[in-house]
Amino acid sequence: MSVLISGSIAIDHVKTQRASQENLLGGSASYAAIAASFFSPVGIVAVVGHDFPDEHLEVFKARGINLDGIEFSGGETFRWSGEYMEDMNDRETLSVALNVLESWQPSVADSQKTATTVNLLANSHPLNQHAVIDQLGAGPGFTIADTMDLWIQISRHELESLLKRIDLLVLNDSEARLMMDTPNVVSAGHRLREMGPKYVIIKKGEHGAMLFGENEFFACPAFPLHDVFDPTGAGDSFIGGFAGYLASLGKKGYNFADLKSGIARGTILASFTCESFSTHSLHDLTPAAFEERLKTFRQYCEFA
Amino acid sequence: MSVLISGSIAIDHVKTQRASQENLLGGSASYAAIAASFFSPVGIVAVVGHDFPDEHLEVFKARGINLDGIEFSGGETFRWSGEYMEDMNDRETLSVALNVLESWQPSVADSQKTATTVNLLANSHPLNQHAVIDQLGAGPGFTIADTMDLWIQISRHELESLLKRIDLLVLNDSEARLMMDTPNVVSAGHRLREMGPKYVIIKKGEHGAMLFGENEFFACPAFPLHDVFDPTGAGDSFIGGFAGYLASLGKKGYNFADLKSGIARGTILASFTCESFSTHSLHDLTPAAFEERLKTFRQYCEFA
Repeated sequence: MSVLISGSIAIDHVKTQRASQENLLGGSASYAAIAASFFSPVGIVAVVGHDFPDEHLEVFKARGINLDGIEFSGGETFRWSGEYMEDMNDRETLSVALNVLESWQPSVADSQKTATTVNLLANSHPLNQHAVIDQLGAGPGFTIADTMDLWIQISRHELESLLKRIDLLVLNDSEARLMMDTPNVVSAGHRLREMGPKYVIIKKGEHGAMLFGENEFFACPAFPLHDVFDPTGAGDSFIGGFAGYLASLGKKGYNFADLKSGIARGTILASFTCESFSTHSLHDLTPAAFEERLKTFRQYCEFA
Repeated sequence: MSVLISGSIAIDHVKTQRASQENLLGGSASYAAIAASFFSPVGIVAVVGHDFPDEHLEVFKARGINLDGIEFSGGETFRWSGEYMEDMNDRETLSVALNVLESWQPSVADSQKTATTVNLLANSHPLNQHAVIDQLGAGPGFTIADTMDLWIQISRHELESLLKRIDLLVLNDSEARLMMDTPNVVSAGHRLREMGPKYVIIKKGEHGAMLFGENEFFACPAFPLHDVFDPTGAGDSFIGGFAGYLASLGKKGYNFADLKSGIARGTILASFTCESFSTHSLHDLTPAAFEERLKTFRQYCEFA
């Protein structure tokens, strides 16, 4: 029972107000895959260039991730550079170079097709997300798609048709407001559901996440961090952890309680991601440290 | 076992993008008192002018609220007028006239002193909040103070000395950031605690609230509303409901679990407040309707 994750792999340069590092492993698929691999076997479908560091490939390999769907292209890897202000909610993109990502067309490897039970379409062009669904066929029991403001603005039509092919849409609050043209996130969540997906998750960063189902709802706070080191990839780790947890349940359909449990676990992985650059703090996260934080989180959320 | 609530009583003029109404009952003490009275006997300490409508006094009387601490002054009542934009988080104050509030000095009535177990200092000048504590002496087992950006800016010294005299400080997230000069609300909450109060509640509007204790923490989402009619007084209803619930427990000290339960109940009352102008939707709120929403809210927050 494994998770197939398609999306971007990037080389990031991240600057915060107290540290800066180049050549970091980044991209939606990278964060999601490493988080998901905490719970389940994972396959990646993505593209990298000739400049992609071996050490980053080793990170995937060390976690047993199936890399057969990674295309090794002659060009340069997708690069992103950004700076966080004193308020970590305030981020400026310094540069973006799509490079090999520009003409990429995802190709799911045969070795990845049969085992897939959760298909996570991490943030990527909606046409690429469609292509992965086309290649996988009816195999996976549960398909999740993430998106972003850019696709809402320039590929709305393809995104809308995608919504009819997935089980769950995940996006952040500003994107939900943009897509539904309303300031009310609760209303946006319900109306996004009516466009196709059975479930919608709206991510709210430091304020947690909301899950919308038919006549069902779940509000999950974020894990409180005194000190956010680098929030890059927190949302991707969140949904990767969510997908990995679902796949680990070893069944085909998931009920609302399963999704709630998945969100709590994704929240914990996202909190670890925020405590270091890149995926570093996920690399040697132990099940004991994870369970300890999950237990604490439960206490933080319980009331009588 | 009752709650004493001191603060402002106002006549509000509220405009939203679809409705507008003048001469509404407003002010921090009004919302807090009506919410608290849902659970416990309540007394109010405040001031009104000659123009204060009898119908608003009737609202207090109908809920059995002790009005002996209300000063009836010859001037005009405190007036506030504001407009909400399409995004209800975006509010513009159109006019404020302090009127009788300007020279008011709170005077707790003898009939209010003995019964008080929770002393809620709703938003008001810190010197007024000090004065109420002075008059009550060591009677109340639990003292709560609310504040706002204005006092943080112009009465910081008086506010800081107040923090050493109260059990719980409540303020909203932008105020917490302002007071502690940090963008990180979690860090602000812990550091505010170190300034005196045993507990701190940070209100985050549509994102809920956080409670900070020594080595303890609680994150409570807001009740999700598709449609916010008028959020004025939601924060005051929240803390009033919280205080009223604590007093209803019939004991002197409260443990962290009590405070968590109080926050959940304050959250429910605040959600009702948002569904009408002024305190209207609290007037005929039934215990059954309250319990029904609390039960739904529990399901919205639970996970395994």
